[in-house]
Amino acid sequence: MRKILFTMLVAAGVPVLMNSASAAEPIALRDMGSFHVGGRIVEITGKPVKEVVFTPGGVPAKVDPNGKYQVEQMYVQYFLPQNRHGKLPLLLWHGGGLSGVTYETKPDGKPGWLNYFIRAGWDTYISDAMERGRSGWTSTFKGEAMALPFGDPWERFRMGPIGSWNDDPAKRVAYPGSQFPADAYPQFMKQGVPRWVTTDDEIVKAYIELVDKICPCVVLVHSQSGTFGYKVLEARPDKVKALVAVEPTLGGDKNKVGLLKNTPVFIMYGDNAKDHPRWSKIRQTGVDYAGVLKGAGGSVDIVDLPDVGIKGNSHMLMMDKNNAQTADLIQKWLVGKGLAE
Amino acid sequence: MRKILFTMLVAAGVPVLMNSASAAEPIALRDMGSFHVGGRIVEITGKPVKEVVFTPGGVPAKVDPNGKYQVEQMYVQYFLPQNRHGKLPLLLWHGGGLSGVTYETKPDGKPGWLNYFIRAGWDTYISDAMERGRSGWTSTFKGEAMALPFGDPWERFRMGPIGSWNDDPAKRVAYPGSQFPADAYPQFMKQGVPRWVTTDDEIVKAYIELVDKICPCVVLVHSQSGTFGYKVLEARPDKVKALVAVEPTLGGDKNKVGLLKNTPVFIMYGDNAKDHPRWSKIRQTGVDYAGVLKGAGGSVDIVDLPDVGIKGNSHMLMMDKNNAQTADLIQKWLVGKGLAE
Repeated sequence: MRKILFTMLVAAGVPVLMNSASAAEPIALRDMGSFHVGGRIVEITGKPVKEVVFTPGGVPAKVDPNGKYQVEQMYVQYFLPQNRHGKLPLLLWHGGGLSGVTYETKPDGKPGWLNYFIRAGWDTYISDAMERGRSGWTSTFKGEAMALPFGDPWERFRMGPIGSWNDDPAKRVAYPGSQFPADAYPQFMKQGVPRWVTTDDEIVKAYIELVDKICPCVVLVHSQSGTFGYKVLEARPDKVKALVAVEPTLGGDKNKVGLLKNTPVFIMYGDNAKDHPRWSKIRQTGVDYAGVLKGAGGSVDIVDLPDVGIKGNSHMLMMDKNNAQTADLIQKWLVGKGLAE
Repeated sequence: MRKILFTMLVAAGVPVLMNSASAAEPIALRDMGSFHVGGRIVEITGKPVKEVVFTPGGVPAKVDPNGKYQVEQMYVQYFLPQNRHGKLPLLLWHGGGLSGVTYETKPDGKPGWLNYFIRAGWDTYISDAMERGRSGWTSTFKGEAMALPFGDPWERFRMGPIGSWNDDPAKRVAYPGSQFPADAYPQFMKQGVPRWVTTDDEIVKAYIELVDKICPCVVLVHSQSGTFGYKVLEARPDKVKALVAVEPTLGGDKNKVGLLKNTPVFIMYGDNAKDHPRWSKIRQTGVDYAGVLKGAGGSVDIVDLPDVGIKGNSHMLMMDKNNAQTADLIQKWLVGKGLAE
């Protein structure tokens, strides 16, 4: 039944966005801006004062590294359309090793989901997870920051199958019918930022502070932030009114599904997820969790895109060539839940 | 004569912005988006493969730290108003230890210079300097990243005089008549990002790549990016059609002033710069350079704001309470140079 519904939506033809706000029309905003939430002050003691020349040839300045430091805050940028059609704010959370840029202009230079959802009339909030991008970072985190080598995401994010990467673009093989704009892969890699693997608790804390400030709301998560989305939903079940999980890396806590009964969840997977040695496990974890949530009375819709006729999507769905089509699916689901008009 | 002109401008009353685009009117954009420019690929060899659990409870992933890495790119976000009044793109470059957030919503929650210049009709490009914010960073930089302690910028950025900082906000003393919103100081400190002091060449390289992509243009710099602005102007004198230097930390290269004859320069200093033990030297460096540039036939206007009746401004002019007044001065100067209407 679910598959039939989504097949009908896809077959319906004209994208939702094209009905309401053509990409050629201006974007009219009643306001736009940014802020940081959360964080705390830490104290460092016992280090020597340094004299630092900040600019070559400049005047040396004394810098005392001791003292209190602001750490662990999170950056948020917002765009509030003049003609609002989303009934609640929409929060877009990115995946690991990336920043809010994930939802901005795609690596191929075409509009991303940020512009789509603003044009669809959502008050849209994009954040850089604590520690990444404009949130800043601190040397007080445990462990080392890491970055992915240039070729690594090609297979990790299912642009091409295992073994398909080659330093020579001409010899690099994408999945047949891949929707990822392969020529734009180098531009995609410029979006990467270092990440730690020890900071989940601080990341979730900052997201909760954002939710406490902005919500009730709809939260859209991707990849690593799937985990964060479920954790925040478990902590603030009355404030997150819908969760859209795009290729989440995990489900939530099976012992807490009872808390989530009033929040509809929409989970979306791209192509080749079922067969991929790593993604098949990741997907199954999410599907198993969804089963437990449904068993407890929760509302979950899972879409494997190839099953509704949308083929070739990578893990970076919002950057794929057909990103308006997948955004349309999300928009229609939100409209169906009464959260937009 | 110069002082009389600016006194007249200030006395003219109604701010420029208020004539053309009220803050209550929607912001209409023909487009908005982002991209990364520049950077290069570096190669790391000889390190062992790691197994990393990216998400607690998640499926372990093998990560080979060897290989090629994308580094040293720069993030740029742009807003293109529907009704364009600026004749060229306007590029806003931030100071040290900060990001493009400098020009967004002020720490006190009120509109920053970004919204001002978009509403004034400028195609506006905000970048995060290479290594900061959404530009990402890499462990291949030389030396250590540093951050300023929580209280340090209070005196360094002339919110209060030397010796005026106190951890207790009630005992913290601002300059008399200070325009900086003291209550918003903690929010300002959340905008900080770590910085290196060894990366100027890479930062300038990325700015040049931006100028090559976007310009001819107007460049507005602040603090540390004053240095970058002059270096880029010396490298691309035909592409930077005006330079607005807000409290620049240095001037340009006195041996290269001949290159800059066709680019008008506007330098602005806030209050207490002349008497401050460190800022008096910084200011004098800029003033001395401007003298050499003028002697070579260059066009330079220097404004010490108190001399034109605008008192109490900190180093963070764009965040001060009277930021529309100082933006008006810049806008009027640009209009006077034929660069906006």
